[in-house]
Amino acid sequence: MDCSVAQCLEVVGEWWSMLIIRDAFLGVTRFEDFQGRLGISRNILQQRLTRLVDHGVLVRRPYSEHPPRDDYKLSAKGRDLWPILTAMRQWGDKYAAPSGPPVVLVHKSCGHETTAVFVCDQCGKRLDLHDCEVQDGAGRVNSPSSAIFRRRAAAVTSDPHAAHD
Amino acid sequence: MDCSVAQCLEVVGEWWSMLIIRDAFLGVTRFEDFQGRLGISRNILQQRLTRLVDHGVLVRRPYSEHPPRDDYKLSAKGRDLWPILTAMRQWGDKYAAPSGPPVVLVHKSCGHETTAVFVCDQCGKRLDLHDCEVQDGAGRVNSPSSAIFRRRAAAVTSDPHAAHD
Repeated sequence: MDCSVAQCLEVVGEWWSMLIIRDAFLGVTRFEDFQGRLGISRNILQQRLTRLVDHGVLVRRPYSEHPPRDDYKLSAKGRDLWPILTAMRQWGDKYAAPSGPPVVLVHKSCGHETTAVFVCDQCGKRLDLHDCEVQDGAGRVNSPSSAIFRRRAAAVTSDPHAAHD
Repeated sequence: MDCSVAQCLEVVGEWWSMLIIRDAFLGVTRFEDFQGRLGISRNILQQRLTRLVDHGVLVRRPYSEHPPRDDYKLSAKGRDLWPILTAMRQWGDKYAAPSGPPVVLVHKSCGHETTAVFVCDQCGKRLDLHDCEVQDGAGRVNSPSSAIFRRRAAAVTSDPHAAHD
């Protein structure tokens, strides 16, 4: 499927994988620590860790020879998942955290609790769903879904309550 | 689990759900269109659509009485998943799109192809993993994972290649 969302989900689109990555961002590196925090079966955890290593998201390194023990750290590719995790956390904070956010992020350089917001890397202005248009890119090889649905999408996103065909 | 990432995954943390949401953002509203694009079994698709409706991410509305037919549109809660989808797409573009991005986003108000970047909503500066600190929030009721792992996380995020305990 020539869709980058699908490709991303292929790697991390599964509950446990993303929670393993969340814990890796919090500094968890060891099998026993992941297992204790996630309450996941050892078998499933080992499968997921191996899969994330195979995909280059985590790097496995030995930290003990006797007994042989590995730990797991995020690669650059893994650390680049941070915006996804951050966007997920913020959505969960908004819609599924009735007692308030379990964790908050403090932006050290300004000292404030922060919410991450998307801006355009070209003009620096807030990036809003309704102000964006989807176009086919160089990697489009299958059905030109963006072209087929562009008109309909424009109608939907400019007015979510508009009448539709 | 008092974690907003886990709560978000509870709703959308599954391959098909997120691809349904992706298509909904492209303007797909009808069962037959989702089914044709995703190549998913009708049974699974119906389950996933119903789940997304139950979670308030999609809104089901009748568009025909004879025969009875519904369509599915994103609610405000569903449209708020856009940053997650955007972050996923961009990660996939970077790491899993060897022929280039299948779709690109044009920022209509500036006219350029855009990449969404996170900034701090307080100071407006680029938000970087290494410049953020995780703290417990009001909704933390279980183990204070952020406290336990703060020191270790600080070490990891400030220097991913640093020696660790």
